[in-house]
Amino acid sequence: MCEANAYLREGDKEELVLEMVDKVVPYEDGLLLEDIYGRRKIIKAKIKELALVDHKIILERD
Amino acid sequence: MCEANAYLREGDKEELVLEMVDKVVPYEDGLLLEDIYGRRKIIKAKIKELALVDHKIILERD
Repeated sequence: MCEANAYLREGDKEELVLEMVDKVVPYEDGLLLEDIYGRRKIIKAKIKELALVDHKIILERD
Repeated sequence: MCEANAYLREGDKEELVLEMVDKVVPYEDGLLLEDIYGRRKIIKAKIKELALVDHKIILERD
């Protein structure tokens, strides 16, 4: 599977938001994250950066 | 490998920008895309949406 882990970057810290993320789609004024099991999390942030071979999605607050 | 293909969405069309993308990082007022072979492409767009199990990165013009 080619999922990745989503991290919220704040300053020089990265906090794990959700593991094994499949989909990230716009939702209201933030994002809806969905993992490969269909579990969902909503976060007020935007996608900043990707490193897919490292399985990393970096999010940032708007 | 867990790369994905990057598409630029304009209206209801999606144009393939770069295949086998590993990294997407902010660059000037757009994004720098890098594929798994280290080939790079710069595009004035932002990341809109991800569907990683489908190997899809959707970009949009700012």
